[in-house]
Amino acid sequence: MNAPFHLRNLLIIMAALLLMHFLKSWIPFPFLEFKKLELDCSKYGSWCSFKNRIQDGRTRTKNDNFMNTDKLNHQQNKKYPEKEVAKHPLDPLTTEEIKKVQSILRKSSIFKHGESPLHSVVLEEPLKDEVLTWKVGQSLPSRKAFVIAFVDGYSHELIIDIESGEIVGNEVNHKSGYPIVTMEELKPTLGVLLKDKKFVEIVTERGVNVSDLVCSNLSPGWFGLAEEGRRLMKIQCYSMAGTVNFYMRPIEGFTVLIDMGAEEVIKIIDSKNYIPLPKGEGTDYRLPAQKYPLLPPLNPISIEQAKGPSFKVDGHQVKWGSWEFHVRPDPRAGVIISEANVKDPDTGRMRRVLYKGFLSELFVPYMDPSDGWYYRSYMDAGEYGLGVYAASLDPLNDCPRNSYYMDGIFAHADGTPYVRSNMICIFERYAGDIGWRHTECPITDMEVELTGILMVKGTNYKNVNQMSSKVDVHGTLLAENAIGVIHDHFLTFYLDMDIDGTDNSFVQVKMAKQTLKHGPTPRQSFWTAERHIAKTEKDAQIKMNLYHPSEFHMINPSKKTKIGNPVGYKIVSGGTAASLLDHNDPPQLRGSFTNNQIWVTPYNRSEEWAGGLYSYQSQGDDTLAVWSNRDRPIEKKDIVLWYTLGFHHLPCQEDYPIMPTVSSAFKLKPTNFFESNPIMRTAPMSDKDLPRCSVSAL
Amino acid sequence: MNAPFHLRNLLIIMAALLLMHFLKSWIPFPFLEFKKLELDCSKYGSWCSFKNRIQDGRTRTKNDNFMNTDKLNHQQNKKYPEKEVAKHPLDPLTTEEIKKVQSILRKSSIFKHGESPLHSVVLEEPLKDEVLTWKVGQSLPSRKAFVIAFVDGYSHELIIDIESGEIVGNEVNHKSGYPIVTMEELKPTLGVLLKDKKFVEIVTERGVNVSDLVCSNLSPGWFGLAEEGRRLMKIQCYSMAGTVNFYMRPIEGFTVLIDMGAEEVIKIIDSKNYIPLPKGEGTDYRLPAQKYPLLPPLNPISIEQAKGPSFKVDGHQVKWGSWEFHVRPDPRAGVIISEANVKDPDTGRMRRVLYKGFLSELFVPYMDPSDGWYYRSYMDAGEYGLGVYAASLDPLNDCPRNSYYMDGIFAHADGTPYVRSNMICIFERYAGDIGWRHTECPITDMEVELTGILMVKGTNYKNVNQMSSKVDVHGTLLAENAIGVIHDHFLTFYLDMDIDGTDNSFVQVKMAKQTLKHGPTPRQSFWTAERHIAKTEKDAQIKMNLYHPSEFHMINPSKKTKIGNPVGYKIVSGGTAASLLDHNDPPQLRGSFTNNQIWVTPYNRSEEWAGGLYSYQSQGDDTLAVWSNRDRPIEKKDIVLWYTLGFHHLPCQEDYPIMPTVSSAFKLKPTNFFESNPIMRTAPMSDKDLPRCSVSAL
Repeated sequence: MNAPFHLRNLLIIMAALLLMHFLKSWIPFPFLEFKKLELDCSKYGSWCSFKNRIQDGRTRTKNDNFMNTDKLNHQQNKKYPEKEVAKHPLDPLTTEEIKKVQSILRKSSIFKHGESPLHSVVLEEPLKDEVLTWKVGQSLPSRKAFVIAFVDGYSHELIIDIESGEIVGNEVNHKSGYPIVTMEELKPTLGVLLKDKKFVEIVTERGVNVSDLVCSNLSPGWFGLAEEGRRLMKIQCYSMAGTVNFYMRPIEGFTVLIDMGAEEVIKIIDSKNYIPLPKGEGTDYRLPAQKYPLLPPLNPISIEQAKGPSFKVDGHQVKWGSWEFHVRPDPRAGVIISEANVKDPDTGRMRRVLYKGFLSELFVPYMDPSDGWYYRSYMDAGEYGLGVYAASLDPLNDCPRNSYYMDGIFAHADGTPYVRSNMICIFERYAGDIGWRHTECPITDMEVELTGILMVKGTNYKNVNQMSSKVDVHGTLLAENAIGVIHDHFLTFYLDMDIDGTDNSFVQVKMAKQTLKHGPTPRQSFWTAERHIAKTEKDAQIKMNLYHPSEFHMINPSKKTKIGNPVGYKIVSGGTAASLLDHNDPPQLRGSFTNNQIWVTPYNRSEEWAGGLYSYQSQGDDTLAVWSNRDRPIEKKDIVLWYTLGFHHLPCQEDYPIMPTVSSAFKLKPTNFFESNPIMRTAPMSDKDLPRCSVSAL
Repeated sequence: MNAPFHLRNLLIIMAALLLMHFLKSWIPFPFLEFKKLELDCSKYGSWCSFKNRIQDGRTRTKNDNFMNTDKLNHQQNKKYPEKEVAKHPLDPLTTEEIKKVQSILRKSSIFKHGESPLHSVVLEEPLKDEVLTWKVGQSLPSRKAFVIAFVDGYSHELIIDIESGEIVGNEVNHKSGYPIVTMEELKPTLGVLLKDKKFVEIVTERGVNVSDLVCSNLSPGWFGLAEEGRRLMKIQCYSMAGTVNFYMRPIEGFTVLIDMGAEEVIKIIDSKNYIPLPKGEGTDYRLPAQKYPLLPPLNPISIEQAKGPSFKVDGHQVKWGSWEFHVRPDPRAGVIISEANVKDPDTGRMRRVLYKGFLSELFVPYMDPSDGWYYRSYMDAGEYGLGVYAASLDPLNDCPRNSYYMDGIFAHADGTPYVRSNMICIFERYAGDIGWRHTECPITDMEVELTGILMVKGTNYKNVNQMSSKVDVHGTLLAENAIGVIHDHFLTFYLDMDIDGTDNSFVQVKMAKQTLKHGPTPRQSFWTAERHIAKTEKDAQIKMNLYHPSEFHMINPSKKTKIGNPVGYKIVSGGTAASLLDHNDPPQLRGSFTNNQIWVTPYNRSEEWAGGLYSYQSQGDDTLAVWSNRDRPIEKKDIVLWYTLGFHHLPCQEDYPIMPTVSSAFKLKPTNFFESNPIMRTAPMSDKDLPRCSVSAL
């Protein structure tokens, strides 16, 4: 409980911001339910809010949410939020701005073919230079929106000047791929299915009542030219008879291919291999469904901050300790962190560290080549939108007291703004580490936690002893007739580091083994640090290796410490994994940004999404790998670091019927950025500094 | 703040137990100071307690320590502790028992050549079978002590039956190496040095006043037969003029070799290259020495548990949630955890997981082949003892409120018992993760945190621009004339897993890439899980590889879940590193237990210390690598898993003058051990469940 603990909290704050991304990561798609077509998570909480809120059968109450927060109350029981005004060049579009964009576009030809053409409505960021030179008190650079509209089979990229009402940019995409699927596009799916007699026939043959039917809309990936020219969706259906956890009851070997544009069934793939539905019994993860005895009760434990949190939030600008940064929700990335700067303890001046950081893509390939599964290789950010499908956070259950909640304001496909409430929470966390002896450098840490419900595959097997060792079931038998299919998770982060300015270099510090045969001492080997400055992009295509280790520094070669080391930050890898897919396998072509763990590219406004701006059904022609292979110069340039965290997931019974957390993180740590340990100047705390809690309060 | 959070706390508890190991890990040796020969950390707190307590210049007060604890008060202002009685077969020796051992040995020939022959006095554990069949209420198996005495140049291993007073075992070691160096052996060193005229002459020539002299006793490693037959120590001296942090002021190029037995200087190595002493300025890490401005103040934050912690400690037995385990301090390993068992949520029965787990060795080779540095390749556990040099934990600064503190009771070299107070703390930590969606399986997690003071090397360089790129300085210039030398840390853990019984198997689950050229679908590649059961030890010598990943399971092949998976636990690697030293380089021969990240050996009472029972000056003839190369059968046997965490450490200026924390952890996670997610049966918490703190209390 030493003050230096707090320094660790910055990373925690940033971690918290990123948490919400992953609440949904193992259900990377929306679903349809027969009885209620409830697809808009912002309007209909009970399903879209996933497991937590329904765990104890509680429904959300009006007062349940915003304890100890002073958030803008623009969503509470109001159809439209209060007027908010952008205060910072990077503040996201306000509801008023989105409405203006809607009205500007309604007058254009964009809406002539339909009511829901908009796949993305976000801030068109001002030029980096404009942002960097802007100061508080100055008027904002002109506010613009970036819109992706899908019209007549083409993706249009529109830039709208909100004040003038003009469409100042309009380009048509000619590369492969389509924009994020909208929630509105999913609504008609079940209607389309039920109109198809064969579909209903098969469902009935399989013993599922149509009224128990739930279906998932799955992105089909891309597997060849035959599929070109139309937007597809694959449908996997489940029975929700006897369980809320219908994902555990797939109708296996039965896939429907749908043309999203034409709203028609293209193909029904029925294996005719009538794999039994796994039982519903034991799949309900909610408390009232649990068998007794319950786990032994534990005494309550909580973070307490009697004086409140130490951070301040003004709009989207967060100040905490020596740090300042800007946070905004984003429909695709979930959260974007910008302009993270730190105060130098020696000079008192703010120093730049990170211009922009976010999760660029979350690639989840499954490892089953069979008909119903081979295509499952999701890109959650680019196909569905991490922000669009983020769950609203539940105070106390998701974030501790004294959290600050931030909403996302996004647009429906018709341009109407809506609020994704409590999408982000910001809090300090007691790191629990030993104080002074165990302090952390100011670190920017991106922590991810994965949980959710596994995608389960139906099988005839009820016991492992029925399975021949020669048959590959592509996973683990988790319960009778239910296999947890093997898959990977790759999280590719975009990190536009600006160490004390934009012109930076990337240094691979190789830990090189040296041997001495007849040296001056009996010592025969050691390792030495060899600094290799990357000249061009290919020098920075890094495949990590335990036996040839390196450190990876982003430095400002023009700025040195007093004793002459170039100032820098290093990226410290967390758990990482390499994709085992063949580089020419279509899913890996699209996910080729995972071919290396690290890449460095020159700053380019159009290169932000690792799988391409249009990753839905993309063919891998616009990925980070393609950009990097241009091999552009990156020394002393404004450069972007890309890092991929990875997990291989071989399911086990403990993942059933709901996954415990897997977490990982990487760190950005100062490396000769400061003259010395920058956090020595904090006093230890004594008992009187800490709050006292009354037992009577219980 | 959901109940499932608590489940994560078990790992935290175990983590806390292990924390103390590493408080000292970057000062892996005792030191001598001219003015006060204060070497016994249990008696003289101010130096041995390291950085934290002296940070703000506070001295420890009697009441400062034991808030909210109900620990045995056997050390408070008492020369000898109260009578304690062992209650569990694995309880460590009590003070009374140590006194009995002392009196038994005093009557033997062990003491005939000197007053301080004892290098280790610990519990001789009963046979595993006796421990496993023992039940609360039964009388304990006969209490025995295991003693290592160094007499006449030989290490004697004695087993003493405490009740009968008989020495029931006495074997002499004929392998290489010597026992842990005792604190008593270090005391005469400075006297020996100061008697040497040449030594005093050189110190004076270097401009250091003898009254400012501080010297470290460094273990010399082993580098060839010439050194055989006597116990050596290398001495590195520092000036403490102008700083408390004398480690930053080495007298470089000046090493003294001492014969510990003969108490004489063997050799003085003086480079005559008069490298200036680095400045003392800016090296004081204590608060009053810091330049202003201080870091911006942050509001207090703490863990609160108004109803107290949920764990119970009875002697050395800890019960928490579904878990029970035994904890004991150990002079060599620091902490030993035994008999960690978990209650099955379905049957209510206790199930065995881990019979014994501890940090077996901490190997720290430095990467500078020059004369003053080549030998530095410490084995902290086997050369010095992680428990012997553990710092006493400082309540609130080291551990939060509601911590339980446990003392170590160890023996001086003359057999007198002493108390290492507050050596271990046990607490619950608010994990801060999102609740239900983010729960953790009951996990046994070993977390390590490294901090401390770097070993700094003197240099002529004042600025990096004076350094030719061709000269390898073996580190980073951290301040004028001070280089932080490159080094590694390898932490090798002993994990005697007993999954539902003693007979277990080790399974490497290879994630094997499969390619399909003309498969049934357009998918061309995937990975599949190939289970390889290790038949003999060599099958389980594991070199991890990012591109050929595996999971590693300890299973009970005779026990299966209802659906037929063998019950097991997997080890999930944290940060790991491979040693880059040549396998034939003497330090790596001694540290050859780091040649693989994982090993599995059959259970053998005599194989517990990865570098051998006698690792001081060992020649690598009794290491884990040697045992494993016997290639004994390990399938369906009582087997031990060994896992090595590793860090490469390339110092940076932020490490100066005191290191921020580096942390890492590995996890033991259930894998088909439970029938399903075992922690679904916990209710979420609401606001009223949590304590309320009054601001007025501040």
